[in-house]
Amino acid sequence: MSVENIKIGLLGLGTVGRGVYRIITGNPENIKRKVGAGLEIKKIMVRNIDKPRDLDINPAMLTTNIEDIIDDPEIKIVVEVMGGIEPTLDYVSRALENGKSVVTANKDMIAVYGKQLFALSDASHTDLLFEASVAGGIPIIRPLKQCLAANRVTQIIGIINGTTNYMLTKMTEEGSDFADVLREAQAKGYAEADPTADIEGYDAARKLAILASIAFNSRIVLDDVYVEGITKITAADIAYAGELNYIVKLLGIAKETAEGVEVRVHPALIPRDHPLASVNDVYNAIFVTGDAVGDTMFYGRGAGEMPTASAVVADVMDAARNLLHNVPGFISCTCYEEKPVKDMGATEAKYYVRLEVTDRPGVLASIAYAFGDKEVSLASVLQKHTDGDNAEIVLVTHKVRERNMQEALNIIKQLSSVNEVANIIRVEGD
Amino acid sequence: MSVENIKIGLLGLGTVGRGVYRIITGNPENIKRKVGAGLEIKKIMVRNIDKPRDLDINPAMLTTNIEDIIDDPEIKIVVEVMGGIEPTLDYVSRALENGKSVVTANKDMIAVYGKQLFALSDASHTDLLFEASVAGGIPIIRPLKQCLAANRVTQIIGIINGTTNYMLTKMTEEGSDFADVLREAQAKGYAEADPTADIEGYDAARKLAILASIAFNSRIVLDDVYVEGITKITAADIAYAGELNYIVKLLGIAKETAEGVEVRVHPALIPRDHPLASVNDVYNAIFVTGDAVGDTMFYGRGAGEMPTASAVVADVMDAARNLLHNVPGFISCTCYEEKPVKDMGATEAKYYVRLEVTDRPGVLASIAYAFGDKEVSLASVLQKHTDGDNAEIVLVTHKVRERNMQEALNIIKQLSSVNEVANIIRVEGD
Repeated sequence: MSVENIKIGLLGLGTVGRGVYRIITGNPENIKRKVGAGLEIKKIMVRNIDKPRDLDINPAMLTTNIEDIIDDPEIKIVVEVMGGIEPTLDYVSRALENGKSVVTANKDMIAVYGKQLFALSDASHTDLLFEASVAGGIPIIRPLKQCLAANRVTQIIGIINGTTNYMLTKMTEEGSDFADVLREAQAKGYAEADPTADIEGYDAARKLAILASIAFNSRIVLDDVYVEGITKITAADIAYAGELNYIVKLLGIAKETAEGVEVRVHPALIPRDHPLASVNDVYNAIFVTGDAVGDTMFYGRGAGEMPTASAVVADVMDAARNLLHNVPGFISCTCYEEKPVKDMGATEAKYYVRLEVTDRPGVLASIAYAFGDKEVSLASVLQKHTDGDNAEIVLVTHKVRERNMQEALNIIKQLSSVNEVANIIRVEGD
Repeated sequence: MSVENIKIGLLGLGTVGRGVYRIITGNPENIKRKVGAGLEIKKIMVRNIDKPRDLDINPAMLTTNIEDIIDDPEIKIVVEVMGGIEPTLDYVSRALENGKSVVTANKDMIAVYGKQLFALSDASHTDLLFEASVAGGIPIIRPLKQCLAANRVTQIIGIINGTTNYMLTKMTEEGSDFADVLREAQAKGYAEADPTADIEGYDAARKLAILASIAFNSRIVLDDVYVEGITKITAADIAYAGELNYIVKLLGIAKETAEGVEVRVHPALIPRDHPLASVNDVYNAIFVTGDAVGDTMFYGRGAGEMPTASAVVADVMDAARNLLHNVPGFISCTCYEEKPVKDMGATEAKYYVRLEVTDRPGVLASIAYAFGDKEVSLASVLQKHTDGDNAEIVLVTHKVRERNMQEALNIIKQLSSVNEVANIIRVEGD
C-alpha cells in the first residue's frame, strides 16, 4: 500500500528553518517508516527569495506570499519558525482557521496568545504543537502532557535560558565580571547584540509561562510571571555563594500552592549537590516534581539550529501521524482549570543578603534586630573586613515571606551603619 | 455528552499494583479530564483473596481466575504488574489475542519475548505499552519513540539499576566495602535477599535491551547484551578512580556503529563532571545522544511503588485515549530493521587497570612493553608502594579494542613480577 506524502509549508528559513529543512530532506526513509507516510516540504515563505543560502534548495519552493501556503489545500501542516508576533500571529491564526495543523517554535507567541490560538485549533480540529518553544531539543511538553499525566505536578524549577546559564557558568568558573562575560558571550554568538530579553529574564519568563500552563492545567501568561534578571549578580556574590556551598543560576520556578500558582524568574543560589547545579554552559534542564513520580529532570541543549529542529520535526511527525489516523488535535490544550496567580509578596523563600557596612560595634546587632522584628530568622552569617572602616556582611535567612523580607530590608537600608544593601538573591532547592 | 468509563483489569496487587490502584482511584476527575473518559478498575487478579491489604478495596473486585479478566468483553485494558514470565507471558498473550490493550511494567518479559508480544499486538490492533519497564517513573520510552523521533540516536548511556547505584554511591561517599554496603542495602530493602539480578547486572541488561531496541529500531534481546556486575569493585578501585577524577558507576551502554549495535552492561569510570556522575543513591538517569539534538538526559526514580505506578498509569491513560479515538495500536513496535549485534571483542574503550606487583626495577617497563606490543597505549600511571616488596600500579589506557586489551592482559598475568591483575574497569563518557 502506497500512502501519499504529507505536504508541509514552512514559514521562515532562518537558523531553525534550515535545520528543519535538513532533517526532513536528510533522512526521508527513516521518517516515513516511523510516521507511516513521507513528509514533503512543498513551499517555504521567506522575506527575500534571492538571498544566498547554504542549502541545496529548489528556488521554485520559495515564496514571499503567505497565501501560497495557507490557502493551498494540499498543504496539511504549517511549520512556523519565523518568530515574532507581527505578522506571525495572523499567519498562524489563518492557517489554523483553514484547517491546517501548526507546529511552532515561537515562545513569544504561545506565552501571550496561547489561549486564542488553542481556541482556533480546537474549533478546526487541528494540531497546534509547540515542543520547540521551550528548552529547544529537550523533550518536556509531551512528557508533561502524557508521560507524567498521572501526576499532580507540584513544582517545576528550570534552567531555561542558555545565554544566562553560559554567562553564570563562566562567572563561576573564572571569577569574571558580568560585563566582561556578556561581551564574550556576544562575541561567541551566545548573546545577541541587544541582550535584554535574555539577561533581564524575559525569555525565561515566556518559557516558564508555557511550562506552568501545562503543569498546572491553567493558562499562565507572560504578565503573570515575576521577572528579575542577572544584571546585578557580581563576581563577589558568586564567590560568597561558593563559600556557602551554593551555585548561582537563573531559575524559572513554578509551584502550585494553596494560595494559587507561583511563577517567578530570578537568579537563585542552589545547593552544589542539587541536580541543577551541574547544568553548565548553554545547557538547559527542567526539574519537575510530581506527587507520584517524585523528582525528575530533563536535560539537554536549549537552543541551536539542530536541537530546536529536532523538536520541531518530532512535532511535525506527530501531527502527520495524527492526520494519517484521522485524529488531528488528538491531545489539545489541557488548560481546563482557572487557578489564581499567587501574589509575589506572599511567596516564600530563603534569602542571601550582602550588605556593605561601617565596621563598628553593634552593627550586626542592629541588623539582626531589624530582621527579627519582621520575623526573618537567620540561618548563617559571614562577616568580612574589606578596607578601612568598612566590612561586608553576608547573611542567609531561613524561609520567609517575600513581603516580610522587603519590610526588613527597608528598615535595614535606613540604619546609619549600613552603607548599602549590595544584593539580595533568593535561595532555592534545599 | 457522557462517555462511559473505560474498564481495566489489573493482574497483580503487589507494590506497583497498589500504586496503580491508588492513583486511578485517587484522582478520577483529573484523569477523566485528561483522557476524555473515566478509568475504572473492574477486576484484580491476586494469588490469595483473603490476604490482609492496606487498601480500601471491595473484595468482590478480587479474583484468582485469569478468565474473569481476559474473557470479560467489558474489560478493554489489562494492566500487568504481577511480574515474572510464567504464567504472565501466557496471560498477556491471551489478553492481546482477545483484543485488549496491555500495559506492562515487566522488563523480564519484554526483554526476551518482546518480538512475539508485539506481533500479537499488531495482529489484534491493540496497544502494548511498557514505559514502566525501564527506569520506573522516568519518561524514556515515549520520548525515544516520539520526542526524539527526528534523530538518529547514536548512543545511550544509562544508570538503570537503583540498587547498584545506591551501593556504589555509599562506597564512594563512605569508602566502605562491597559486602558491608550490600548488607546495608538489604536491610533497607533496596537490595533483595537474593541480590544476583541487580549486582550481576542482569536487571540493567534487560532494561538496556529494551532501550536499544527502540533507539536503534532493531530488536535486541537479553542474550545480545554483554553483562558484568559490580561484585569485583573494591573500595580501593573507587578511591583510585577518585584520585584520577572519575566516579565508578554501573552503566548500560548501547551504541550504533558501522560494525553493528553494541550493547553492554558493566561498571565504568566516568569523569566527575559528566552529568551521569552526580546521579546518586537510588536515582536512575539515561543519557541519550542524537545526531540532531546532541546530548540529552532523563533523570528520576527508577523504582518504587508510586514512581513506577506513575509510568503505568500514564500508559493506561494513553491506551484509553487511543481506544476512545479508535486508534488502538497508534504507535506500535518500531523495530523495522535487523541490525547485527557487534562482537564484544570488537568494541572499544579506555581501561583502568589495577595491578599488584613486586616492587623491583624494570617491573613497569615490562608491563608497558606488553601493552605496547598489543597496541594498547597508556594515558596515565599511578604507582603506590603498599607493604614490604609490594606495590600497586594503576594505569589508564587510551581507547583500545577489547580484544587487544585481553591479549595484553594475558601476557601481563604471566610476568614474574606481576602478582595479580587486581581489577580492570572500562572508562567511559570522556
